[in-house]
Amino acid sequence: MAVSRTIYVLKNRKGAYHTMQQLKERILKEGKVLPGNIIKVDGFLNHRIDTKLMQDIADEFAHHFDLRQVSLILTAEASGIALATICAHRWGLPMVFAKKAKSDNIEGGLYQSDIFSYTYKKKVTLLVSNEWMKPTDHVLIIDDFMANGEAVRGLCNIVKNAGATLVGVGCAVEKGFQGGGDRLRAAGINLKSLAIIERADENGIIFREE
Amino acid sequence: MAVSRTIYVLKNRKGAYHTMQQLKERILKEGKVLPGNIIKVDGFLNHRIDTKLMQDIADEFAHHFDLRQVSLILTAEASGIALATICAHRWGLPMVFAKKAKSDNIEGGLYQSDIFSYTYKKKVTLLVSNEWMKPTDHVLIIDDFMANGEAVRGLCNIVKNAGATLVGVGCAVEKGFQGGGDRLRAAGINLKSLAIIERADENGIIFREE
Repeated sequence: MAVSRTIYVLKNRKGAYHTMQQLKERILKEGKVLPGNIIKVDGFLNHRIDTKLMQDIADEFAHHFDLRQVSLILTAEASGIALATICAHRWGLPMVFAKKAKSDNIEGGLYQSDIFSYTYKKKVTLLVSNEWMKPTDHVLIIDDFMANGEAVRGLCNIVKNAGATLVGVGCAVEKGFQGGGDRLRAAGINLKSLAIIERADENGIIFREE
Repeated sequence: MAVSRTIYVLKNRKGAYHTMQQLKERILKEGKVLPGNIIKVDGFLNHRIDTKLMQDIADEFAHHFDLRQVSLILTAEASGIALATICAHRWGLPMVFAKKAKSDNIEGGLYQSDIFSYTYKKKVTLLVSNEWMKPTDHVLIIDDFMANGEAVRGLCNIVKNAGATLVGVGCAVEKGFQGGGDRLRAAGINLKSLAIIERADENGIIFREE
């Protein structure tokens, strides 16, 4: 029994290593660094979606979080939805995405949190209906890409406002040099990013060593 | 052989019937009609996401479109992304979601189409990078909810601008009484909506007979 368990752990580690390597290799191969330290990974992560890669990422997150504890997956529109959908599907859990700003189709009874969107250079309000998050929920936040961490900070606030329990945050790609992830870690949040970019400029992309 | 094929077809038809019934029953049970003929289905379709239902919807679309022809799934952010992601994953195809308005993370080389958003009561521009849609692509548009059909009209324009081929449009829920779907059908577009709502008011929701 001890032997087969060791093999299982090794296999898991190898799978994990493979996914993280795969993600990093695709960032290196297909990512583009634009002026202002903008990193474009829109060929597989946030414009064109590679759902097979998303499934591998979901399986990788499953090694880092105790999914038996989780009752709800939470993300923010728009680009987090694809990855969170695959995670929710893979794990058999419901998913809620926070809407941005006010649309007529969401009525009262909302948890909300104001964040600053660096993408759109303005304040944005994240909204979740209190129908779909309860104090009894154990929430895992999933996002595709973290820069300043504002979206995740807003989502954490919503979980807190709902009186729900935050299990952790799974993020595919983190821009480590912008500090958003480290601020969340310093606040005691269980954040796992699969690829942390430490530097991105005309010389290329460097990942943080784990 | 003939017998087993008949059974297979019957089984498929039964599955199809079941999915459409299931979707209609959930709309009747969980949908809410708000003033202004707004139909809220945010408990399973466009705020909280039931990925199992999405998979059943994907399997149902697979009966209506020849997926061997399709090279790309296209949708619009934000609420179309979840269903399009499950469809793309189920069918092993890439998915692209059109972004709304201009963000700094999309550079030049864009196909775009202006639409009027009744949700936000303003003009919105749909954008797809020309890197991710080619004239050789055969595109299936997937959307969760059609009212005036503006989003799908915009997506059809983008497919046309790209010189790609439109295979069809699969939509989960259509508000038939707003005419968007019928205008697309009249324009010769192969549109399949799984639940078409013919009337929605204080007396309840009535579906169009197929």
